[in-house]
Amino acid sequence: MSDNRYGELRPGQRVLMGPGPTDLDPRVLRALATPVVGHLDPDFLHIMNDTRDLIRSAFATNNHLTVAMSGTGSAGMETCLVNLLEPGDRAVVCVNGAFGQRMVDIVGRIGAEAIVVQAPWGRTIDPADVEAALKQGGVKLVALVHVETSTGVWQPVEEIAALARAYDALVVLDAVSSLGGAPVLVDAWQVDAAYSGSQKCLSAPPGLAPVTMSERARAAIGRRRTKVQSWYLDLTMIENYWGEARAYHHTAPISMVYALREALRIAAEEGWENRWRRHLRLGRALQAGLEAMGLSLIAPPEHRAPMVTAVRVPEGVDEAAVRRQLLADYGLEIAGGLGEFKGRAWRIGLMGNSCQWKNVVLCLTALSVALRAQGYKASADEALAAAQAALAAY
Amino acid sequence: MSDNRYGELRPGQRVLMGPGPTDLDPRVLRALATPVVGHLDPDFLHIMNDTRDLIRSAFATNNHLTVAMSGTGSAGMETCLVNLLEPGDRAVVCVNGAFGQRMVDIVGRIGAEAIVVQAPWGRTIDPADVEAALKQGGVKLVALVHVETSTGVWQPVEEIAALARAYDALVVLDAVSSLGGAPVLVDAWQVDAAYSGSQKCLSAPPGLAPVTMSERARAAIGRRRTKVQSWYLDLTMIENYWGEARAYHHTAPISMVYALREALRIAAEEGWENRWRRHLRLGRALQAGLEAMGLSLIAPPEHRAPMVTAVRVPEGVDEAAVRRQLLADYGLEIAGGLGEFKGRAWRIGLMGNSCQWKNVVLCLTALSVALRAQGYKASADEALAAAQAALAAY
Repeated sequence: MSDNRYGELRPGQRVLMGPGPTDLDPRVLRALATPVVGHLDPDFLHIMNDTRDLIRSAFATNNHLTVAMSGTGSAGMETCLVNLLEPGDRAVVCVNGAFGQRMVDIVGRIGAEAIVVQAPWGRTIDPADVEAALKQGGVKLVALVHVETSTGVWQPVEEIAALARAYDALVVLDAVSSLGGAPVLVDAWQVDAAYSGSQKCLSAPPGLAPVTMSERARAAIGRRRTKVQSWYLDLTMIENYWGEARAYHHTAPISMVYALREALRIAAEEGWENRWRRHLRLGRALQAGLEAMGLSLIAPPEHRAPMVTAVRVPEGVDEAAVRRQLLADYGLEIAGGLGEFKGRAWRIGLMGNSCQWKNVVLCLTALSVALRAQGYKASADEALAAAQAALAAY
Repeated sequence: MSDNRYGELRPGQRVLMGPGPTDLDPRVLRALATPVVGHLDPDFLHIMNDTRDLIRSAFATNNHLTVAMSGTGSAGMETCLVNLLEPGDRAVVCVNGAFGQRMVDIVGRIGAEAIVVQAPWGRTIDPADVEAALKQGGVKLVALVHVETSTGVWQPVEEIAALARAYDALVVLDAVSSLGGAPVLVDAWQVDAAYSGSQKCLSAPPGLAPVTMSERARAAIGRRRTKVQSWYLDLTMIENYWGEARAYHHTAPISMVYALREALRIAAEEGWENRWRRHLRLGRALQAGLEAMGLSLIAPPEHRAPMVTAVRVPEGVDEAAVRRQLLADYGLEIAGGLGEFKGRAWRIGLMGNSCQWKNVVLCLTALSVALRAQGYKASADEALAAAQAALAAY
């Protein structure tokens, strides 16, 4: 019995300005459409090697253990935590948003103890609080989020990483939103484990998680008394597939690796410093435009990430209705708030290939129209002038 | 600093006759190249609904809890086991090859007890042995592999499933290699949890794992005393994203879902019965051809799967050299042996879009040439005649 009930795949044409996924470069789309080879094919092994080198370049590291995990950024988070922690271990987890909370959840599922260092959502973690937690003793690792996608807060890493090292703890860094859009200097900052997602500032499709681990972290894995609780995310085996042994573990997602390699290649051609600067300039331009419309941003200016901006919804404005209008009238996607900011914030991304001046202009203009439709006075002229001025200042 | 060291993505052109991935239909490649939308976009939610319906159709089930997990088939295996088992639970695991062994490994990582029911690699599991294990009492689930990709053995499911039910145990079925290429009748067989991989007889790229769970399995998850040990694979949350709540869990791999939907749509257009018949006929044709060359197949005729055939390497023939020659001279990929059969077998897949008569002919011919190059007498004429006769008989 033939079944023809399902129509052509024809999703709407979008401008993606949420916090990932992003619009893909046509080269990445073509890479996705490249015919598949086997996961142990010599040609694929070369492609994996290139991808691994490029991930090292993105993380500014020489770490041997550098892979793309076959899952999304959250799988990268779980990979780092389940490989480094065993039941009964103590971990200091910095929480100032949804993704820090997720780490606490995972640490609990491992049967490890999470010592939570908190800051209000929208604020940075205070290194003094981390030190106080480290003084409790016996801490195996400190985990923190570089750019909290739920608030747009950009956390300084170096001081906390130095503290962790002083107390002989490993440093785990969530670089999901930051990697490719701002410096993530794994070796210079002495970060021991970092993970990201393919669909943020790297502008590959969602589905892979770049992960890198220092020799210190590898040694910690080598000293485990128990097996890693996840077979699928067990780096001791995955390392043998990405490494010289090429031992089969699971079938790599070939098409996704093609796409990630191409996206990383595009980023390397642009140059990481140029890419960081592009994100910083356009992010500041967008933020200046939003403030010129009288909108209030959640992250303080000195800790405001450029690639994702969380904006308070003004009193009396229907958060979801604005997003619906942007999508219907412009094909423009921005995201709603998460957790504490659900229904109370928008999150606007300028990531990777979506981080373009024309998108800044479209977003500010479309938002001003949508806000005016709800009785909130917003001038596109003023927003664009402020954005241009900010751009010129960088 | 711009870095232009990495060349164009240009993997070799292959004919994929390993046990997955397979050659993709051009429609699936085009689906992959479709511009990305957001993971909460209304258009994407429709695409998810279609995909879910089509997965239900593939599994011949009405199960509410039916999803595509964001990982490969092994992630599907881990999903079923970590959601259904808690530390201390007892599971009967049927092992007659590499993938049954993998289940034992995962059960151990959960801290559950695996009661292993073994059969030699290349043989089926004896239901009487399963019943003996069930008689030990307190068994929460029985896990078995439908088609062992490491041996090509096709395990009958119904009798073991009925036994499990008689002892009030859940049935977990590995349908990684079988789904789409042979009947996997989840509802009719009263299977409680089944998983597969996107890259086998469904002929999507690797990276997604279709999973379905019965109401009995859902109820068992609802009775858990502990959280599921994997955050990433926790179905209680993933169900809320694929279900009506649409609660964000992780960013779905959009492009992969596009591809899986298209691959399933192609399969539904062909009709599942027609697809099973195509696999059976061409599988039997290939197997007759191989035997006509004097080669010995690992699975016995009455339990021989059509979509993956494990062939013993004849005495004096260099297993890897033959594969290298097929790849170099014909772009033809077949796989080596796994586990007990490493270095001693080839595994030839006829899966999904790779399951074509012209591939049967190419493989038999190319293999006869490669074997003769190593001093093994093999006639392509005889092989093709046998294959044609087998085809005509079905």
